[in-house]
Amino acid sequence: MASRVLSGMQPSGLMHLGNLLGALDNWKTLQTEYDSFFFVADWHALSSNYADTSRLKEFTHELLIDWLAAGIDPNKSTIFIQSHVPEHAILHVLFSMIIPIPWLERNPTYKEKQEEIKEKDLSTYGFLGYPVLQAADILLYKPDLVPVGKDQLPHLELTREIGRRFNSLYTPVFPEPKEYLTKFPKVLGIDGRKMSKSYHNTINLSDTEPTVRQKLKTMVTDPARVRRTDKGNPEICPVYDFHKIFSSEDVINQINTDCRTAAIGCIDCKRQVGDVMVERFSPMWETREKFSANPKHIQEVVEEGRKRASTVATETMKEVQEAMKI
Amino acid sequence: MASRVLSGMQPSGLMHLGNLLGALDNWKTLQTEYDSFFFVADWHALSSNYADTSRLKEFTHELLIDWLAAGIDPNKSTIFIQSHVPEHAILHVLFSMIIPIPWLERNPTYKEKQEEIKEKDLSTYGFLGYPVLQAADILLYKPDLVPVGKDQLPHLELTREIGRRFNSLYTPVFPEPKEYLTKFPKVLGIDGRKMSKSYHNTINLSDTEPTVRQKLKTMVTDPARVRRTDKGNPEICPVYDFHKIFSSEDVINQINTDCRTAAIGCIDCKRQVGDVMVERFSPMWETREKFSANPKHIQEVVEEGRKRASTVATETMKEVQEAMKI
Repeated sequence: MASRVLSGMQPSGLMHLGNLLGALDNWKTLQTEYDSFFFVADWHALSSNYADTSRLKEFTHELLIDWLAAGIDPNKSTIFIQSHVPEHAILHVLFSMIIPIPWLERNPTYKEKQEEIKEKDLSTYGFLGYPVLQAADILLYKPDLVPVGKDQLPHLELTREIGRRFNSLYTPVFPEPKEYLTKFPKVLGIDGRKMSKSYHNTINLSDTEPTVRQKLKTMVTDPARVRRTDKGNPEICPVYDFHKIFSSEDVINQINTDCRTAAIGCIDCKRQVGDVMVERFSPMWETREKFSANPKHIQEVVEEGRKRASTVATETMKEVQEAMKI
Repeated sequence: MASRVLSGMQPSGLMHLGNLLGALDNWKTLQTEYDSFFFVADWHALSSNYADTSRLKEFTHELLIDWLAAGIDPNKSTIFIQSHVPEHAILHVLFSMIIPIPWLERNPTYKEKQEEIKEKDLSTYGFLGYPVLQAADILLYKPDLVPVGKDQLPHLELTREIGRRFNSLYTPVFPEPKEYLTKFPKVLGIDGRKMSKSYHNTINLSDTEPTVRQKLKTMVTDPARVRRTDKGNPEICPVYDFHKIFSSEDVINQINTDCRTAAIGCIDCKRQVGDVMVERFSPMWETREKFSANPKHIQEVVEEGRKRASTVATETMKEVQEAMKI
């Protein structure tokens, strides 16, 4: 039996280039080798967005379209929505009983995020318990591997600790899922900071060609290069980073030279990277449109995913209940 | 439509006289007037008993037998087990997202219980979140009334606060259940302290006649009355409290006089109260035996209860999801 891989994403906004290059491209590769489970963590999204849920359904729908358009294939992967599988909530309530609060308070991202996101009241029980729900999400499917970025490593370690605590209190039920550290390029937003929906600097997978072109036009470059005749430094230009991701080796080298000698201006340089991005994304945009026009298909995909996920979740919960004698 | 009443009990031990007189006798009356929901809070029992679940199933089964034997009638009441209705866990996870931690830390029983029960590690996430699960248990059924003892009033107030917070964040879904304060006699255990399973001083509904008689024999009386010829003070004698609960007015007065004059000894006094208790409990013991011999019937009762409870719970969750736009 193939090893199992599991990952999830919160529907807390529209998918952007960072998500595509950092996660979806990896998932697309993983699904050919592993028994793959990918889920929309809609309950998780509430942990920081409970006060405004107006776009949650829309984000969930768009996210699923983005996944499919990015090549996540329902024939290879189990694609489902967290809230469709009640076992996540049940395992969450059971785990809650055995998790010492200090484990959660110690979680480095807990205080960090609370301080970072000042405009929301995150002093909630569910925000503290984020890793408890996450452990339930993961361990329910007993995956061998969980693709994560480096910043998620403490969470995954906490998941393993929770599994170990369960196993030692009752009977061993849960494996210790290993991280699958994904290599991916640093993706900067149009303002030169890390691309992130909270910075409003993203290029979204659902953007149209004119929007992408327009966003590139407003994108920051080497700030010292004010006039067309000024020589530029590509090393500090986020547009050059896009070239490094999307352009061919030749073009990258050419741009590097031409920028430093002012042989090319920013407008032309952006048009060039725009062309190659449009070429790369056109098939995805077409698929996106096809799926957008067919919401029934999306429903069928997640219903089929729900069935497959439920089969595994029910099986695990049976073992959990036997182990706990409940 | 009749008003709805809801109450639950943890299967954390065998039911005793205190539970019968303090709760079950009231439930029996309530079920004739109200649309009554009574549930076994088996997930709740984990909040303090997660480390030893060996008898949880047995306690659940015995508790159901005790309920039926005490006259809780499945034709009048919806009798069900919390863990059979996943909506409790789902509403719990949703509530967790909106409840400020200080509300839970402020809960007077939280610190109290942690200090009182020193032999267990109660610094868990689920123990802190006890009122969150309780609010889900209650509000899922939108009851008008919740029978509680005075010590449970802060919890019920917290349930109302949680409902209000949900209603104000989203759309009004939940009513504000009122307390139904039950009058019941103070029931002392055989050691003279409050009857409680944690004190191991209970007379259980599942005790047989010889056990009850034996427990009465070892029961403490007025400690100053050492010899048969010493005069006693019934006011400080827990056996006299039993007389006040179970004996007729005439007998109570007679015992009061005879104890103070040493006309009756403790052994005879205990025998007398034993006789009247046996008379009172004999029908319950017989019914108990009948139900004990028929576990299939218990299963049918809770399966029927699960169906009825699920109908209401599903309806409420539909409203919750619409209100939250999830």
